[in-house]
Amino acid sequence: MSNYTITPLEGGLANVPGFYCDAVNVGMRPNKDQGDVAFIRSDTLCNISAVFTSNTFQAAPIKHFQRYREDFQTDFVLINAKNANAMTGQKGIDDIDTIMEALKKKIAVTNPVMSSTGVIGYHLPVDKITSAFDTLDFTAKESDKAARAIMTTDSFKKELACEVTLENGERFRIAAICKGAGMINPAMATMLCFIITDADIPKTDMKRLLKEGTEYSFNRISVDGDTSTNDTVMLLSNRQSGAYDKSAFAKALKQMMFDLAMMILRDGEGTNKVVAFEVTGAKSDEEAQRAAVALSNSLLVKTALFGEDPNWGRIASTIGASGVACSEEKLVIHYDDLLIYSDSFRELDPKREEEAYKIMKQERFTVHCDLGMGEGSYTAYGCDLSYEYVKINAEYRT
Amino acid sequence: MSNYTITPLEGGLANVPGFYCDAVNVGMRPNKDQGDVAFIRSDTLCNISAVFTSNTFQAAPIKHFQRYREDFQTDFVLINAKNANAMTGQKGIDDIDTIMEALKKKIAVTNPVMSSTGVIGYHLPVDKITSAFDTLDFTAKESDKAARAIMTTDSFKKELACEVTLENGERFRIAAICKGAGMINPAMATMLCFIITDADIPKTDMKRLLKEGTEYSFNRISVDGDTSTNDTVMLLSNRQSGAYDKSAFAKALKQMMFDLAMMILRDGEGTNKVVAFEVTGAKSDEEAQRAAVALSNSLLVKTALFGEDPNWGRIASTIGASGVACSEEKLVIHYDDLLIYSDSFRELDPKREEEAYKIMKQERFTVHCDLGMGEGSYTAYGCDLSYEYVKINAEYRT
Repeated sequence: MSNYTITPLEGGLANVPGFYCDAVNVGMRPNKDQGDVAFIRSDTLCNISAVFTSNTFQAAPIKHFQRYREDFQTDFVLINAKNANAMTGQKGIDDIDTIMEALKKKIAVTNPVMSSTGVIGYHLPVDKITSAFDTLDFTAKESDKAARAIMTTDSFKKELACEVTLENGERFRIAAICKGAGMINPAMATMLCFIITDADIPKTDMKRLLKEGTEYSFNRISVDGDTSTNDTVMLLSNRQSGAYDKSAFAKALKQMMFDLAMMILRDGEGTNKVVAFEVTGAKSDEEAQRAAVALSNSLLVKTALFGEDPNWGRIASTIGASGVACSEEKLVIHYDDLLIYSDSFRELDPKREEEAYKIMKQERFTVHCDLGMGEGSYTAYGCDLSYEYVKINAEYRT
Repeated sequence: MSNYTITPLEGGLANVPGFYCDAVNVGMRPNKDQGDVAFIRSDTLCNISAVFTSNTFQAAPIKHFQRYREDFQTDFVLINAKNANAMTGQKGIDDIDTIMEALKKKIAVTNPVMSSTGVIGYHLPVDKITSAFDTLDFTAKESDKAARAIMTTDSFKKELACEVTLENGERFRIAAICKGAGMINPAMATMLCFIITDADIPKTDMKRLLKEGTEYSFNRISVDGDTSTNDTVMLLSNRQSGAYDKSAFAKALKQMMFDLAMMILRDGEGTNKVVAFEVTGAKSDEEAQRAAVALSNSLLVKTALFGEDPNWGRIASTIGASGVACSEEKLVIHYDDLLIYSDSFRELDPKREEEAYKIMKQERFTVHCDLGMGEGSYTAYGCDLSYEYVKINAEYRT
């Protein structure tokens, strides 16, 4: 068992040696104080791993990425908001090549990749985007600007960083920016997340730990059950620290990704609370997952959360509708530590209803359902559905 | 090919000879002008077929029904609103027996069945319900009262009737009342539907035609993707007309069930428009169904409908997320007859956007998606998601 400490750091991406970032506004976003084109750059070549959306209609930047050979290295990621470059056909991919040719006239880059978020079905404004290369500072460390430039309906920027100190005194850092607020789904949150590190991590570990971290974090959150065309989680490593410990890196990465996922959920469009749906006692982990995800996606559960209605009927009904093995007699439901339903305890008395109501008024609480059928367990994270969600999504064009 | 005519009739259940119905308010519903306990009775024994919810937690009245032997006959259906008698354990079933014993002291009934809708997890107020037997008129034909008594969040009553005239001049009638507004889902709309007929229909036809009719109607509509514990569609036949023709009956039943399903969708909580999601060109009917149902359930599609946003991005993204075989190049999307997306036509010009906007302003329109992959097709029906939906479901306890 290795010994290590993980220390949070302020300042996001700026903490990792050898990496640079900046953002500018080229006129795609009306608010000129916020960028719409950003980059993350390394002064040496990086290994890169990525997890992409499960949506069949993968956006052009994802297709462009996949044209590189599997073990390619890169030193440049370009990101734009306001246009997803999705459902844009071959021209969508060609546009990225055009943009990267223009970039190469300003700065030497190897295998540059792109990532986009915004409206689907419109070609990128290539000239606007390339105009960014005149004003971006390629040696800046403007993490705040980059984090804000990639936002869409997000109400706050999302950036985290930490330093890991190993037993032998060696250190490495991990930092990330991410965006996402609506369209969040366990099949893969609609979001962009860029993680950088100077840890001396082998390429094989990168791939596996990024996948595990995604499963543990972004794939467990749901705002509205939809999955976008552009979801991307990227991990770039320049190995400059020379330091690495697998379990320490895994722990720090997992924690950072989970914290980012919770930030996304808290920033879910029009949401007021984050609820953990913890299902235990299922016949298998798969059945537990099916029930937990059904709870986190149910409109009736979400509106009951918003209405702070302690009645457990919608919870039970949603589990029953999810098709997992369960029975009225074996089901036990708790809100935090408060027993809400069991075979011998079905009708809430006014006193307990008052206690349940207090729990539901919190910004975070747990709905725990034990199915009593086996050993399977899974936790999904959801949020309430408010008037505000409908308003935002009726007015915002994606 | 048989020749027949189907004539709509006013007056709902009252049209079918040998059937009686009435409703009273026993104090479960605050509004005294509307009943909360209703019955449908026949003066002779009826064959009965039923389709129930796919929810694992079937309500007590459904379990009670299933205790009868498979080919049982009945002459009495008791229905109550405001309490679902779901998740109520053995006592929930015993309560129905107690209620039926009290009924038998007032009127001779054989194998009476019950159906309930309302809040989950509370025992029936048995005394209140049996008090109805003192005031119900067992020889009345009060279809309007019965149709209104079974409503929950419905904003209007749902009753239909028709007469079928066969080539040889023989006639039979079909009539129905139904309720349902929220929690509607293709897996089985959360609703109660009671259909009566004097057609001389064989029991085997009843079962098959009711199942086909349900698949064609209630199973294709979605308000919010949830499936309740109490969904029930019942068909009772007293065979008193002596007339029957299978294809005529099938046609009339199917049309009536489809019309009732559209009434439910139009009355979906807080909905303003009904949209047909027609998917063609899928690899199989199952894939077409998966894509169509995903469209009818997507929160982002629903809010776009409410916002009357003609952008097709959310439609395409939802199809891509549904996991069916499809490609950017082969997909073609129409709103009614207007081409919205194809490989060679991706960006909406302002003129066409204006036309699309006009189509979306209608109370009913079709989103047609051809996947270009095969011969599979399916149509699901959905509605928009408004502020009102959230308000109703945050405030109503189910």
